[in-house]
Amino acid sequence: MRMVDIIKKKRNALSLTEEEIRFFVNGYTDGRIPDYQASALLMAIYFNGMTEQETALLTKMMVESGDTIDLSAIKGHKVDKHSTGGVGDKTTLIVAPLVASVGVPVAKMSGRGLGHTGGTLDKLESIENFKIELDNQQFIDHVNNYKIAVAGQTGNLAPADKKLYALRDVTATVDSIPLIASSIMSKKLASGADSIVLDVKTGTGAFMKTLEDSEALAQEMVKIGNNLGRNTIAVISDMNQPLGYEIGNANEVREAVEVLQGKNVYDLKQLALELATQMTLLANVFSTYDEAYEALEQNLKNGKAFSMFRQFVKAQGGNVARIDHLDTLPTASYHIKVNSPTDGYVNAIDAEAIGIAAMYLGAGRATKEDTINYGVGITLSKKIGDQVKQGEPLAILHADSELPKDAIATVLKAFRITENEPTNIKLIYKVIPN
Amino acid sequence: MRMVDIIKKKRNALSLTEEEIRFFVNGYTDGRIPDYQASALLMAIYFNGMTEQETALLTKMMVESGDTIDLSAIKGHKVDKHSTGGVGDKTTLIVAPLVASVGVPVAKMSGRGLGHTGGTLDKLESIENFKIELDNQQFIDHVNNYKIAVAGQTGNLAPADKKLYALRDVTATVDSIPLIASSIMSKKLASGADSIVLDVKTGTGAFMKTLEDSEALAQEMVKIGNNLGRNTIAVISDMNQPLGYEIGNANEVREAVEVLQGKNVYDLKQLALELATQMTLLANVFSTYDEAYEALEQNLKNGKAFSMFRQFVKAQGGNVARIDHLDTLPTASYHIKVNSPTDGYVNAIDAEAIGIAAMYLGAGRATKEDTINYGVGITLSKKIGDQVKQGEPLAILHADSELPKDAIATVLKAFRITENEPTNIKLIYKVIPN
Repeated sequence: MRMVDIIKKKRNALSLTEEEIRFFVNGYTDGRIPDYQASALLMAIYFNGMTEQETALLTKMMVESGDTIDLSAIKGHKVDKHSTGGVGDKTTLIVAPLVASVGVPVAKMSGRGLGHTGGTLDKLESIENFKIELDNQQFIDHVNNYKIAVAGQTGNLAPADKKLYALRDVTATVDSIPLIASSIMSKKLASGADSIVLDVKTGTGAFMKTLEDSEALAQEMVKIGNNLGRNTIAVISDMNQPLGYEIGNANEVREAVEVLQGKNVYDLKQLALELATQMTLLANVFSTYDEAYEALEQNLKNGKAFSMFRQFVKAQGGNVARIDHLDTLPTASYHIKVNSPTDGYVNAIDAEAIGIAAMYLGAGRATKEDTINYGVGITLSKKIGDQVKQGEPLAILHADSELPKDAIATVLKAFRITENEPTNIKLIYKVIPN
Repeated sequence: MRMVDIIKKKRNALSLTEEEIRFFVNGYTDGRIPDYQASALLMAIYFNGMTEQETALLTKMMVESGDTIDLSAIKGHKVDKHSTGGVGDKTTLIVAPLVASVGVPVAKMSGRGLGHTGGTLDKLESIENFKIELDNQQFIDHVNNYKIAVAGQTGNLAPADKKLYALRDVTATVDSIPLIASSIMSKKLASGADSIVLDVKTGTGAFMKTLEDSEALAQEMVKIGNNLGRNTIAVISDMNQPLGYEIGNANEVREAVEVLQGKNVYDLKQLALELATQMTLLANVFSTYDEAYEALEQNLKNGKAFSMFRQFVKAQGGNVARIDHLDTLPTASYHIKVNSPTDGYVNAIDAEAIGIAAMYLGAGRATKEDTINYGVGITLSKKIGDQVKQGEPLAILHADSELPKDAIATVLKAFRITENEPTNIKLIYKVIPN
């Protein structure tokens, strides 16, 4: 078998066989196939796509290129949740204790990753003494004892994907739906859950800007999961503005805990309930959507979800006083209002820009070496649909410097204020399959 | 400027600017741009093509990536001829002295290259003592004094093309008309001729199998030449069988000399006259096609073309006795007939297969290190349209081993014999532009 023939086949819009995909993935992972042949194949895939079967096989080979996490020692049906990435998205902090409160075990291994704001690990570490290092046995014991564990990823998951992703990034072959879908799913499948709920974001602040593209990506990922033996469903949710009002690390923990304590932060609570409902349905805890939804909503109201969260934080060494008294979480030295330059309605809030502004303040990492400042962040004062008067605050920046000019300018630019009230504001567009 | 943005632009079917093409060609040539980004761009070009302007710019940058040959010290209008490659194609040996005989200087620098049979340099070296090493001054003096010089290439012509071609070969990005056209033309333009006549082969034995593809390639090359200031025309000629009857090195010299001595080897003589006519028209030696054609045909009959050839061979040290007495050229030890297995008409002769058979006999190089056996080769006994009886010879193999089984089998397979007489046999399909 020769790599040049495999490239030519895909270039000519033919389907690759299992053997050919294995030859490519294994050869590329161990360095026998050079980058220049891999990038030519990736570009041919960009143009000619892959069939459902090819995409599943590519994902499978990428999973098999590295370690897989064995969760079989954990009792119960393990459901994972994955978001394609949004700003202000702290749903994991709510969803994990919420599904745990009805008996679904949550075994989450996370990587750190770069981004505008920190990942789930960083957010949790803004709670004093919270410890994300658990060895495999501890991890499993924690899930069996406390229903939730969140730990830093150990092991070498899907190294083929890691190597291919780095190559795609510099060869303009990122934007290919089968490649995006197989990349995401290879990491999820290697993490060992029985079922997967995907939160696919759509809108100006999402990787996929149009509903059409988001739906195509969701369909592709759901097919991969199901083809490889995991029940998978996808929720397509809005990212035309940040989720909730808080962006940052301690900030986001605070807002998540408030929702766990029963506060109604509309979009955040709504999305968390939708995702949790889908997860408990996949885990067969409830038999109907309504039954699941109502039971979960009840557990937000009656404090059961919050008490799962408290127990989990405590188990991983975190100081629960910090979440019992949210004003003791880290905070910044300065709180700067960004005021509206005009009267009108908030029509859009560029989530990506808000994320970048938060990164300027120190809430995220631009490079792996950056350290995170847990106390800084942004609180939105207005969301889409809200009326605003000239001079009224649109957002408050929590900063450790007196005048964070770049962040202020970026936040100001992120808000689009119009004369007319926006219509047709949506949070959840679709569930796939339905 | 970032290479990834250039790849993305072409991937999105936009045109690249002069600066972007220069950035790519220069960066790739000097190693700042890695192979994996170049191959991604090449694949994007495969799918999205290039405009006439982009193709001309790519060619120009590849020319400028290395040395160019300065022929300005040679008096007269220099016309180069280039063939896209055919089996039995010894037209250069006829065309060069033929156009020289009417005053067009021929300054040909050739590379060696791999192939089924040798190149022009190898064919000439089958004449005892013929010397292809001339320094620049000698080369120019020879053209001025004897009207013809053929020398081995010195200098580093279009190194960007060399590097890109090697990459295309292993990344399935060879078959792209703008890339093929710019690759061929970059070498031609670096060779310094004022005008160029291209012989674009079409048919089963050619790189371009269909007339449509051959015409597209010809159009593209003619546009490049004219856009970069050289008068360029292309003749599309048949390669559904080898040209003439002889394949090999000494073999081909023998047949070429016979044509120069007035013998009518139909297709070979016809194509040589067509190409020579076009060359003399570009050089403004004649004012009409008919005038040029008749004068050239006359110089085959009256021996003027042959005497130019003799003078040129002598000037480069070759033993003219060998061409005055063609039976003293190198020959092989065995002459093996390949007989027809059936009655019928020759319908097709796979030129590529005949070329491969000749290589098996030792007439060509499979790798750079191979040495050529000048005496071996193949003489066709039948050409397309000829009637043949069972047991009659189709070809004679000139071999240095008694039973060259592979070559015999390959030649036998190359002939397609049918019951019906083939119709519509063509030699010259088109001249572009016309």
